[in-house]
Amino acid sequence: MSGASRLLQARAALSRVFEPSDNVGLALVEAAGPVDALRVVRGEISPGQELGNSVAGVLAAGGISGRGNRLSEAMQRWTPRIGDLAPERDLAAFARLGGELLIPEDPRWPGALRDLGLGMPLCLWVRGNLERGLPELGSTAAVVGSRDSTGYGVSVTGDLAAGLVTRGWTVVSGGAYGIDAQAHRAALAAAGTDRMPTIAVMACGSDRYYPAGNEDLLRAVAARGLLLSEVPPGSAPTRWRFLQRNRIIAALGAVTVVVEARWRSGALNTAHHAAALGREVGAVPGSVYSANSAGCHRLLRDGSAVCVTDAAEVIELGSPIGAADNPETAREGPKAAHDGLTIEDILLLDALPLRTGSAVGKLATVAGLSVPAVRAGLARLELEDLAVRDGPDTWRRRRK
Amino acid sequence: MSGASRLLQARAALSRVFEPSDNVGLALVEAAGPVDALRVVRGEISPGQELGNSVAGVLAAGGISGRGNRLSEAMQRWTPRIGDLAPERDLAAFARLGGELLIPEDPRWPGALRDLGLGMPLCLWVRGNLERGLPELGSTAAVVGSRDSTGYGVSVTGDLAAGLVTRGWTVVSGGAYGIDAQAHRAALAAAGTDRMPTIAVMACGSDRYYPAGNEDLLRAVAARGLLLSEVPPGSAPTRWRFLQRNRIIAALGAVTVVVEARWRSGALNTAHHAAALGREVGAVPGSVYSANSAGCHRLLRDGSAVCVTDAAEVIELGSPIGAADNPETAREGPKAAHDGLTIEDILLLDALPLRTGSAVGKLATVAGLSVPAVRAGLARLELEDLAVRDGPDTWRRRRK
Repeated sequence: MSGASRLLQARAALSRVFEPSDNVGLALVEAAGPVDALRVVRGEISPGQELGNSVAGVLAAGGISGRGNRLSEAMQRWTPRIGDLAPERDLAAFARLGGELLIPEDPRWPGALRDLGLGMPLCLWVRGNLERGLPELGSTAAVVGSRDSTGYGVSVTGDLAAGLVTRGWTVVSGGAYGIDAQAHRAALAAAGTDRMPTIAVMACGSDRYYPAGNEDLLRAVAARGLLLSEVPPGSAPTRWRFLQRNRIIAALGAVTVVVEARWRSGALNTAHHAAALGREVGAVPGSVYSANSAGCHRLLRDGSAVCVTDAAEVIELGSPIGAADNPETAREGPKAAHDGLTIEDILLLDALPLRTGSAVGKLATVAGLSVPAVRAGLARLELEDLAVRDGPDTWRRRRK
Repeated sequence: MSGASRLLQARAALSRVFEPSDNVGLALVEAAGPVDALRVVRGEISPGQELGNSVAGVLAAGGISGRGNRLSEAMQRWTPRIGDLAPERDLAAFARLGGELLIPEDPRWPGALRDLGLGMPLCLWVRGNLERGLPELGSTAAVVGSRDSTGYGVSVTGDLAAGLVTRGWTVVSGGAYGIDAQAHRAALAAAGTDRMPTIAVMACGSDRYYPAGNEDLLRAVAARGLLLSEVPPGSAPTRWRFLQRNRIIAALGAVTVVVEARWRSGALNTAHHAAALGREVGAVPGSVYSANSAGCHRLLRDGSAVCVTDAAEVIELGSPIGAADNPETAREGPKAAHDGLTIEDILLLDALPLRTGSAVGKLATVAGLSVPAVRAGLARLELEDLAVRDGPDTWRRRRK
């Protein structure tokens, strides 16, 4: 068996033993390498004091303080799962689905996930076209939100996802009902053939279509985008896996956008993961009467998120400063007549009548300016096409 | 004539000569006092080098750098207006309307306006019941927005203003159509008799009802709240006066809330005045498809405003930290079953079947926990009423 195969099989097996973010397990892999870690887990190697110290060292470096022998405690929870390990069979079955196991030793492994530190997944069970690997962090946005979305949320999600994909970005989401489903759907609809439109990160095995009502959509994502999970094929989606899955969504996106979320919502969990990673977080505003926007407003209110209203603003938020077009520039619109005028000229313009002209002396009184200032101002306003002479010494405003 | 009358007449007269925020005029009043300032303006006293230096000093202290003799330039623009001054007549006519001139020397003068520094109004022409003076800054909110409000904006404004007044706060606004009118209206509707519900700050003289369509509303504000302006009776509302009026609205409110505003809107000008004064600014979110919320989203996006969705949040924003009830506390709602559980107990709870019980060994495999950890966890979950024994060594989740 080649080294690469051994690594693949070891990580595939370990992903069946460790729950997501099993810190001790991940530290063991870092300390011993995946192949020897599996042998320790299987009881083929006795861990020994030295390895125990290494694991404690990795945990301490990851900010996790230990008490007692973490490794032997962990061995007890791993043991019930080591009987059924058959990584070769798992990999072969997954390959028949068109899937491939992506591991950190693979050059296609997304560098963005390394920001998770010790929480980086052991591996990713990926379905879809991996030829070019995963898209760069710089052009990936997570779009997440409530399952029980409103028509407003669905509509905004559709516009955001389509706008992102049209500009060459990839939309990452969680494959759930509501906002997630609409994000994937709109991304697929807007996609050409040259780019990866969308990635669904699952809390269950990526061989499963969960929830069942999204089966057709998730099949389409697997065919034209990527469907992936850190838990192995056949795994059920548990609460813990949902919560941990959110960190992968957050890590894959340069920016995480919450479109709709209730006051308590899993989407807020994804937003907090993103913030903890130093990623940008955007929240879409909505009606103050919509319970489905309360979570977004909460993020805006406590400063955890920036207000985003369209795809251009999401891209600006997710891009290094100055790299994206500034969406404000496009929106400035026509300037008003008085833009750029001095205070004196605004006073004078306000004093000029629209119909019958007014004498310079009268204008001085009305505007509160001296007579010389009125004469100088009239000359400027005439040049700007804002004032017109109406008689020997009378002026009125020029109608536009 | 008493000293108080002389002060009143001098400020009344000067308010007819100076436009709002006439820095040189205001510096002259500060340097010479209102009575002598009026005599200078009228040409009864020649300013002299010493006074010129004092005025320049006041301007410099206010951050306004001078060039040349600012005072003699200003004299030229004041001169056209000094012919018609009749402050005694103005004050008598205003008194017949039930109005009163409030000046900074009066103990009822709102201290909040002193934060405007040199830009503090010369005086306020006030209609309404001034017995208790103006309300304290600590319980006053400015509620402003577009003239062309939507049904959504009107509805939110009504809820905000009513909620503020019910909690003993005063609503300040600009008396315009749309959001302003609704803010005054809802404040009056919610008011008892013991407090000042609302204040309208006008850009024209406070003897006028502008816009004409708001005449009945503004009469009601004058009767049960306060209708006030820094410009004297009879003055027309010019662009300059609108822009300057906004600084008074911002200064009177502990917090300024923009309910609806287009991308370019006078309400944003009020928000910027408030921010410049170090006052809090709130913006109400709305649909990303509503052009009338684009200005609010702009404020949220650039960090100039905090997202506010109800009166309690406005009060929290406008109150010293910790003084207001925290609106989040009231909203937390019931906790979910898994709140406060450890990771191990969440894993175990997820592994427990709902119907037929599962053996401890099976639970260890499914949850990824050791057998002793499962036994300890089951004991905790049983205490929490989340797990129930189903047979000799089998357990299931307790249905709620």
